[in-house]
Amino acid sequence: MSDLPINPTPDDAVRWHEGRLYLLDQRLLPERAEFVGYDQAAEVAHAIRTMVVRGAPAIGVTAAYGVVLAGHAAYKLAGADWKQAIGDDLERLAAARPTAVNLFWALQRMRRLIAHLEHGDPTEALLAEAIRIHEEDCAASRRIGELGAALIEGPTEVITHCNAGALATGGYGTALGVIRSAYAQGKIIRVYADETRPWLQGARLTAWELMQDGIPVSLQADCAAASLMATGRIGWVIVGADRIAANGDVANKIGTYGLAILARYHGVKVMVAAPTSTIDLTLASGQGIPIEEREPTEVLNCGGRRVAPEGCEVRNPVFDVTPAVLVDAIVTERGVIESPNPARLRALMSD
Amino acid sequence: MSDLPINPTPDDAVRWHEGRLYLLDQRLLPERAEFVGYDQAAEVAHAIRTMVVRGAPAIGVTAAYGVVLAGHAAYKLAGADWKQAIGDDLERLAAARPTAVNLFWALQRMRRLIAHLEHGDPTEALLAEAIRIHEEDCAASRRIGELGAALIEGPTEVITHCNAGALATGGYGTALGVIRSAYAQGKIIRVYADETRPWLQGARLTAWELMQDGIPVSLQADCAAASLMATGRIGWVIVGADRIAANGDVANKIGTYGLAILARYHGVKVMVAAPTSTIDLTLASGQGIPIEEREPTEVLNCGGRRVAPEGCEVRNPVFDVTPAVLVDAIVTERGVIESPNPARLRALMSD
Repeated sequence: MSDLPINPTPDDAVRWHEGRLYLLDQRLLPERAEFVGYDQAAEVAHAIRTMVVRGAPAIGVTAAYGVVLAGHAAYKLAGADWKQAIGDDLERLAAARPTAVNLFWALQRMRRLIAHLEHGDPTEALLAEAIRIHEEDCAASRRIGELGAALIEGPTEVITHCNAGALATGGYGTALGVIRSAYAQGKIIRVYADETRPWLQGARLTAWELMQDGIPVSLQADCAAASLMATGRIGWVIVGADRIAANGDVANKIGTYGLAILARYHGVKVMVAAPTSTIDLTLASGQGIPIEEREPTEVLNCGGRRVAPEGCEVRNPVFDVTPAVLVDAIVTERGVIESPNPARLRALMSD
Repeated sequence: MSDLPINPTPDDAVRWHEGRLYLLDQRLLPERAEFVGYDQAAEVAHAIRTMVVRGAPAIGVTAAYGVVLAGHAAYKLAGADWKQAIGDDLERLAAARPTAVNLFWALQRMRRLIAHLEHGDPTEALLAEAIRIHEEDCAASRRIGELGAALIEGPTEVITHCNAGALATGGYGTALGVIRSAYAQGKIIRVYADETRPWLQGARLTAWELMQDGIPVSLQADCAAASLMATGRIGWVIVGADRIAANGDVANKIGTYGLAILARYHGVKVMVAAPTSTIDLTLASGQGIPIEEREPTEVLNCGGRRVAPEGCEVRNPVFDVTPAVLVDAIVTERGVIESPNPARLRALMSD
């Protein structure tokens, strides 16, 4: 990777530069585009937990670089015994967030490499693998963009929820990758971005990404989606995913499930755009996906300011599960699964 | 009405005291409970527009008191010709907000009184009528509470959206009136309050009201409602209304329509609690209801802080229309309409 850019773009969410990992601090966007540098895996785990970086594929890429830092530190500490010394850091990274399976997928891939390495300094080999994961993810997004855009008959308007853009991936984006490709082809003429409370990924990240690309975007409160669909202007809901079970059930940002129900009611189609690293064939259905519940303060506060009464109880699950029956198409870099079911997912993954 | 209370409760949203109208400033809640005093109708219209007071029945009551101030000023200015002089103020009040029909209903009732008044000082007669409107609305809420609670088989948990409480009415509340009554009877054991972006009526007002009454309330992001319904714990969605058309279509806070679709999908029932002053038989269906679009800043900002990029476009309709087919019961002070249709609404209103 080249020098750190002075004016970072969404594609700069995760950067390796001169032995350090740099994350574009997504908590500060769109007000400021600032990098934070990391050289310890424990700090990287903390960055994932506190959402300096978020988005399932981006978390996976970040964790892979975290393993590079862990391997480097373990070798400095323990020399030839680095494989014992790296264990705690791998566990710290795995414990950072529970729902996005890409985190565990990336760690599993790094673990497999580690199993094949000798006792010498692993840094170079680990870095090569992390960069491969990063580049593969970016290429996957580009391919997902092409395949997803091919499904869309335009011109139409679409709704997206949360941020499944370059910021959420190794680059280009999954849902926003589809939108970028379809916009370039004249098939999508406007994007409605749900603001996506409580963390406001739509207002802060998706609007920023699309505006940088000159793609017409209108921001709306999450609960304004139904009346928008009732106008008949919306052709598709296009979202990313944090984990897809073997039957095609999709865990994604809280609100996706409701949006999919609204889409079905209005005859709007639902596209889930995600790399195959998001598919978890070990879970038969979405019921097995662990749903993260985050701090009450995320809902008690708005824009950093307390809005609810002191002592107010909060329910804050940050993902929900959309059953496969409400999904019209899952778009991966290996191909499209329409009306997802277990046989179709198995077939795609065994290709 | 008695002295201004030092520690205002939700029932103090609108108070007449020694020749002035006092509104509990709902923009400051729950941080501060402060009254603002008004002695000019134009100021009252501005208070309605800027949401010092909000909620369809409360806006109606406020407008009635606004007419008292208008009549008093008109008589001071023009003496026996006060009926000419009052016209501009009546128009200002009517133009304050477009969707809630209770505003026009209250003004119509005051206009009818004005037509019957002589040329002398109208203040006393206008005030008597405004107080009647206020007291009738509070009594209506109590009766709605009883009738709505009777529909609920408990114990169950419910979702409410926006604030249809004492703050939104002449006192006690419509949706929250039903919840208060049903909680007292052990039928409702917990309320989930949607925070209700962009104005956060749920976080700021509903949570505050229910906590003051010791009713268990959990706050959630609007888009968390679907996954909550999927747990099977929710028996009812209970909301207020800003205008109900002759066929039973309901205009209410943005998000109500989507919530009703989610409720139908999950087998959850939908109750709309509103006084008959909310019913507009002049509109055949909800398509004719004017839907207010408010300032982009409401969505661009969160908790008073800018969250979206500069120049971002916004869609901000603040009401939507729920078709009658998605409403299980409309509860008014005159009775309950199950599975609303034109004949049933006509029958209720002609009783």
